[in-house]
Amino acid sequence: MASAIKDFSRLCVHTQTTRPWDLKSCVENYSRAGIPGITIWRNVLENQNLKEAKKLLDDHGMTVVSLCRGGFFPSADPGKREEAIRDNLRAIEQAAAIGAPLIVLVCGADGRQSLERSREQIAEGITRILPAARDAGIRLAIEPLHPMYAGDRSAVNTMKQANDLAGLINSEWVGVAVDVYHVWWDDTLKTEIERCGREKHLFAFHICDWNVPTTDFLNDRGLMGEGCINIPEIRSWVEEAGFRGFHEVEIFSTRFWATDQKEYLKKIKQAYLKKS
Amino acid sequence: MASAIKDFSRLCVHTQTTRPWDLKSCVENYSRAGIPGITIWRNVLENQNLKEAKKLLDDHGMTVVSLCRGGFFPSADPGKREEAIRDNLRAIEQAAAIGAPLIVLVCGADGRQSLERSREQIAEGITRILPAARDAGIRLAIEPLHPMYAGDRSAVNTMKQANDLAGLINSEWVGVAVDVYHVWWDDTLKTEIERCGREKHLFAFHICDWNVPTTDFLNDRGLMGEGCINIPEIRSWVEEAGFRGFHEVEIFSTRFWATDQKEYLKKIKQAYLKKS
Repeated sequence: MASAIKDFSRLCVHTQTTRPWDLKSCVENYSRAGIPGITIWRNVLENQNLKEAKKLLDDHGMTVVSLCRGGFFPSADPGKREEAIRDNLRAIEQAAAIGAPLIVLVCGADGRQSLERSREQIAEGITRILPAARDAGIRLAIEPLHPMYAGDRSAVNTMKQANDLAGLINSEWVGVAVDVYHVWWDDTLKTEIERCGREKHLFAFHICDWNVPTTDFLNDRGLMGEGCINIPEIRSWVEEAGFRGFHEVEIFSTRFWATDQKEYLKKIKQAYLKKS
Repeated sequence: MASAIKDFSRLCVHTQTTRPWDLKSCVENYSRAGIPGITIWRNVLENQNLKEAKKLLDDHGMTVVSLCRGGFFPSADPGKREEAIRDNLRAIEQAAAIGAPLIVLVCGADGRQSLERSREQIAEGITRILPAARDAGIRLAIEPLHPMYAGDRSAVNTMKQANDLAGLINSEWVGVAVDVYHVWWDDTLKTEIERCGREKHLFAFHICDWNVPTTDFLNDRGLMGEGCINIPEIRSWVEEAGFRGFHEVEIFSTRFWATDQKEYLKKIKQAYLKKS
């Protein structure tokens, strides 16, 4: 089993977890709550001066863990694929500007074409943005998404596929983000996490829980301990695989967004200590 | 690619597909529409005299393809597991009474315990009801369910797991039901269908489509051709694996249930010919 979590030194919260808050509110409240890590979703950077955003983060001593998200490479429409490349290059610039060392890739899918074709386009897309990422010193993490998103959000749906893709691209700048929500059901998870560590591309670890029942495809994630995911066990595999980075709390929840976000942050900290 | 479908000789419709209809309406309307096969959901047998139901089916020359559904074996509560056994034994009696040669098993899961434990209990459950099934001449089909149901409806989520389980039980009475809705996303699908045929336990084939986007976890399935599943390709794999049984249309759809069911049946026939 996993060792107990004793403090908040490796806790990171995604801005999307506290979606009602803008960047400033996230930074101030996370900082005040003793949460050292932040993963920044691009929506909170809209209409922001990135230098000021960087200063805000620095002034509060926040560690920017990653920028969410790049990706969405595949399309049956070649024009859309070019647009995706441009958008990913902009994401790399944003990540560099705010000091994010990593971009999480939600790879994309297009139901009008086969999953195989979408995966080829994902590999092409990552390969095309890789030089810019390397030049900027930004790593890219392929995040396998749950198979329920294979029609529209990601053609990469298992750790094996993510590991295969990272292996194919074969760059120290390209790795994998493990999000328990997407992969907990997979009976090859443990071995693929071990492989991911062995191949030196385990870049990120995201936590939340799977509610039983789950009522919405996007925004009904649970707080750690509320659902059925064996989070401490998966964390132990990730740690045995050599991962020493942040534990990122990424919860999309209409239910929690409707509550007081400061109280919610307390619940997150409690659930992190006891149920992660 | 698959050969074209030329007629309705292998078309079967699940009573749940036309949920507003009772058994009599299903039988009369399917028969009138020239649909020879019917899979009967147990809800339409409630408060029915099974001899009369059998006579109704025979009088209309319907082929009963299967009874849906048995299963739901796992539970953290031993009492519930015994209850599940009793319920499955009743299902076997019902299947025998109405002339269904097969019961589809939605295996079940319990989020309070590990998926491995639930799978053990599924194997135990099937093993326990197997003698009664064999005595009644009823085959049992393990249906792998989409990973989005791993928390509550099935701990068997891939064709590989279903094949492994059927292989473990190792009886000519226990096989697998392939439903495209649950398995289309899996990159091992083709090889596992081949294996399923080779191991002589490919018992059933269900079709519908995956809507993009899908808005409900249970009742937003698409008519063939509406979504992103490569149905003719998967059918070709199933046929190459030696399957010669019915193509069963199993669509749960709040949208279609709200429409005129006779018109809907016409749409099903058209989609079956052109998009399956």
